[in-house]
Amino acid sequence: MDKLQKRPANYVPLSPIGFLPRANAVYGDRPSVIYGRVRFTWSQTYARCRRLASSLLALGIRHNDVVSVLAPNVPAMYEMHFAVPMAGAVLNTINTRLDAKAVAGILRHSEAKLFFVDYQYVRLASDALQILAAAGEGGRAHVPLVAVIDDADTPTGVRLGELEYEALVSRGDACAELPRLDDEWDAVTLNYTSGTTSAPKGVVYSHRGAYLSTMSLLMSWGVGNEPVYLWTLPMFHCNGWTFTWGMAARGGVNVCIRDARADDIHRAISRHAVTHLCCAPVVFNILLDGNHSLAAPVHVLTGGAPPPAAMLERVERAGFRVTHAYGLTEATGPALACEWREQWDRLPLTDRASLKSRQGVSVLSLADADVKDARTMASVARDGKSVGEIVLRGSSIMKGYLNNDRANEESFRGEWFLTGDVGVVHPDGYIEIKDRSKDVIISGGENICSKEVEEVLFQHPGIADAAVVAMPHPHWGETPCAFVVAKDGAAGVCEDDVIAFCRKHVSRFMVPKKVVVYDVIPRNGNGKVEKNVLRAAASKLAPPAAVPAQKTKVKTTTVGGRRGEHPVAHVMAISRL
Amino acid sequence: MDKLQKRPANYVPLSPIGFLPRANAVYGDRPSVIYGRVRFTWSQTYARCRRLASSLLALGIRHNDVVSVLAPNVPAMYEMHFAVPMAGAVLNTINTRLDAKAVAGILRHSEAKLFFVDYQYVRLASDALQILAAAGEGGRAHVPLVAVIDDADTPTGVRLGELEYEALVSRGDACAELPRLDDEWDAVTLNYTSGTTSAPKGVVYSHRGAYLSTMSLLMSWGVGNEPVYLWTLPMFHCNGWTFTWGMAARGGVNVCIRDARADDIHRAISRHAVTHLCCAPVVFNILLDGNHSLAAPVHVLTGGAPPPAAMLERVERAGFRVTHAYGLTEATGPALACEWREQWDRLPLTDRASLKSRQGVSVLSLADADVKDARTMASVARDGKSVGEIVLRGSSIMKGYLNNDRANEESFRGEWFLTGDVGVVHPDGYIEIKDRSKDVIISGGENICSKEVEEVLFQHPGIADAAVVAMPHPHWGETPCAFVVAKDGAAGVCEDDVIAFCRKHVSRFMVPKKVVVYDVIPRNGNGKVEKNVLRAAASKLAPPAAVPAQKTKVKTTTVGGRRGEHPVAHVMAISRL
Repeated sequence: MDKLQKRPANYVPLSPIGFLPRANAVYGDRPSVIYGRVRFTWSQTYARCRRLASSLLALGIRHNDVVSVLAPNVPAMYEMHFAVPMAGAVLNTINTRLDAKAVAGILRHSEAKLFFVDYQYVRLASDALQILAAAGEGGRAHVPLVAVIDDADTPTGVRLGELEYEALVSRGDACAELPRLDDEWDAVTLNYTSGTTSAPKGVVYSHRGAYLSTMSLLMSWGVGNEPVYLWTLPMFHCNGWTFTWGMAARGGVNVCIRDARADDIHRAISRHAVTHLCCAPVVFNILLDGNHSLAAPVHVLTGGAPPPAAMLERVERAGFRVTHAYGLTEATGPALACEWREQWDRLPLTDRASLKSRQGVSVLSLADADVKDARTMASVARDGKSVGEIVLRGSSIMKGYLNNDRANEESFRGEWFLTGDVGVVHPDGYIEIKDRSKDVIISGGENICSKEVEEVLFQHPGIADAAVVAMPHPHWGETPCAFVVAKDGAAGVCEDDVIAFCRKHVSRFMVPKKVVVYDVIPRNGNGKVEKNVLRAAASKLAPPAAVPAQKTKVKTTTVGGRRGEHPVAHVMAISRL
Repeated sequence: MDKLQKRPANYVPLSPIGFLPRANAVYGDRPSVIYGRVRFTWSQTYARCRRLASSLLALGIRHNDVVSVLAPNVPAMYEMHFAVPMAGAVLNTINTRLDAKAVAGILRHSEAKLFFVDYQYVRLASDALQILAAAGEGGRAHVPLVAVIDDADTPTGVRLGELEYEALVSRGDACAELPRLDDEWDAVTLNYTSGTTSAPKGVVYSHRGAYLSTMSLLMSWGVGNEPVYLWTLPMFHCNGWTFTWGMAARGGVNVCIRDARADDIHRAISRHAVTHLCCAPVVFNILLDGNHSLAAPVHVLTGGAPPPAAMLERVERAGFRVTHAYGLTEATGPALACEWREQWDRLPLTDRASLKSRQGVSVLSLADADVKDARTMASVARDGKSVGEIVLRGSSIMKGYLNNDRANEESFRGEWFLTGDVGVVHPDGYIEIKDRSKDVIISGGENICSKEVEEVLFQHPGIADAAVVAMPHPHWGETPCAFVVAKDGAAGVCEDDVIAFCRKHVSRFMVPKKVVVYDVIPRNGNGKVEKNVLRAAASKLAPPAAVPAQKTKVKTTTVGGRRGEHPVAHVMAISRL
């Protein structure tokens, strides 16, 4: 058996890039990308990617070089997911909601050789490049080549740097020989974490991991042939949860829109007969905005923070078929998906919503997922109650964090990757996330899942949004502190009322000791609550003895009790994906 | 990028065996296997497989040892697809339609250490073991341990050898430590080709290849969650086209039946609400047998010889949704699948059947599929006419033939695996098989696809079955010779009539020079026409000058013209899968 060696015919390195030549061969005449009046077929997309790859080589881009991009969901962004790795390079998509300092930090840390910038982000990119150049005055400046991406439908003429995307595509050679992938462990993309809890970390995916994730996510979501996929989830977010590559695997249509506004989304759904879209739960509000009706069901894959059951219920009523997943950048996007069981179809809508809000079962590319006691690494009981850390293992887990040995050592333990998320396993094997491990509140030795308290707050008839964090306490160590947003027109949402409401619904030790009414809950570009910001605010509200000694001056003393008093509330905007 | 090394948490060898612990974890309480009154859940199947694997280890079975099995589609056969590789061994499933000499040949060539025999095949196995022992009298006999598999629903008490399947399961330890898979390139199964054109060859699959094939076949066929899969296709045939493992990946139900008889099939479909089944086209006759109606559509994946369009049409009318695939043992079963395009739904049924009879596009685990001129290795034009050899490349291609360097050298050329099948590429990229390369008839320098002539014969109103092979010819080199079976009650199907019919429908050089009316066309256990048998018969009918010198005596001179005169016709039976 062992004498049979690998040959080029029976051992081909796994890579999601390979889906594109196949799409060219078998779906060549079918639409690949639609953006405004711009339309490409799979043959055209393949040729354009080959051209761009050859231009990158001509610019001197080589194996393992990082090519960064700052762009919304436009055709160029899609094409770069293939063209950059086809040149042997590593694609680094940057969150467009970051500030110039953060963008500069990523360009510096990744040592990007080339930086593509959509015309809309020229200002942000210029500022970032200035910071980068200034920081390097000691001779260590590494400033990348810059190429602008003009609008493909309506060119603006805006320019930055010496290069322009369409020109690079045009001058490329579709027949040029491209480097051959020899090792499927090679890096394909580099995605920086959003850094809600710590400094951004550079997550490196291998070709192998990206290929396997793409296959298993298509399978977990049940994406058949000829999907029409609307790009609401940013491609910069874990490479669009791998569906950038997945659409090539399935010969689907990529419907690109620059902004995920309610009008644009609903117009695209009806005009192109969209069948699938992904989004963070925060986009559900946009989907429900206005009086739109769906001609056919639209499948929605959602992840991030679990949406409240009531919200899921409303979205389903509107005709969206929601699959709930759980993932993280380090697991190439979704790692668990709530696979639907036919028998659940017969349950009332509220029960269905509650089952759907669970994160589910491991995708097929994972070898295993479990919930463990982080100290002993023993599995918790499958009772839906015993809380532990969600741990993962399998070929869709990242290669590791770039140049960050410490983070790698902290995140990998033996056979497992530690997610830092806290959850339970239900008797049927479905995992439900309870919290980020950092978000667990330890009060008098009892663990309180902030998520559990939040679920109760969402049941309050006057509350539109809510988040709960730990507040230092001299006696209990920590106690819950709630931040809530009142619904438009809801009167009487105040601390006493909310505390009274919670007392009726949760154990006494879980009731927030403090309730702050905000205009908006601060969220980052991916819709995640910025709990670090809230923790800082809560810390200032804590009973004096519990405030750490070095923080003697409590700057904001007027906060709490009434709506809109917190200055932070006014500078935050609800981020759209 | 390259500093990030593989870790146990992010690099897990790919193996279809891994689908079973996952099924245990996430589908544990759901049915896995149904056979008569026998029912198992995924948790039970997992425990049973672990027990059996531990018993195999206790018997001394080690890494790379071959465990052979001769059994129909019963639960034990299913379990061994996991348990044998879980013990580090290689599963060799033997075609139950082979004769004792062929079975002995496989046991000898594979050096099987352990041989499981279903009670129904005890006689065949005994004969094979005797041949094996006799051949080894010179001291080189290698006779495996033997274990009988009694019927799981209704035990018979029939025994062979010292071991019994259920006893091995019972005495096994579900908690015993099993060997760990270190290299995904390790062998998982060994399948012998049917040998219609040459001696059987032992095809070795790797864990990696089997995993990737399983994933991509589930995807190509669009198998969702909770399928109810009826085992009509023998599991010994390319491991049931990987759906043995695929059902564990999808948490499906394996409905096992001992015989693929019309009654059993239709009873199982209605009793268990079957959603999916695979079969050779020859089983279509069984599906259409009797007056059964389907409560819901049943998805059928078919492969092997392309079924005539008329047959496909009737099966679709009966409520079966047919997907047509093309594959071969060396490609882990289906390598091309006719992915359906929504736009084709609007075509008339006959056009749809004609599109469906094409073999289609490469499955996702293949890196590439092409049709090439076998001499120059240049791709043929995508015009639906230019004929060439179908070549494949990708990680689902076998590791190679066991102990057969010559066959390996002949089958692998550079980057490609040569299938020996002849086909065309249509302008839409879909490949259509025209013939086995050995079945192409070269007449006066012109290639004739026997399949093309066969399609015409099937259009004849009085013809039920047909096959065309090359007949030596003194002037043209070869000419087509047709073997046809008249429909029940069809009168006047004779050589002149058939030749006249062909003249109206194909070019003159393609018209058979000889037509023989048979009772049945000889087919092997997998439903494939035994063209070597027909070629031998045709050779005897050839004009004298063309008959090779050593074959001076033409034994059968009365053949042809009238039905039932050929002695071979009476000893052949249409084989059921």
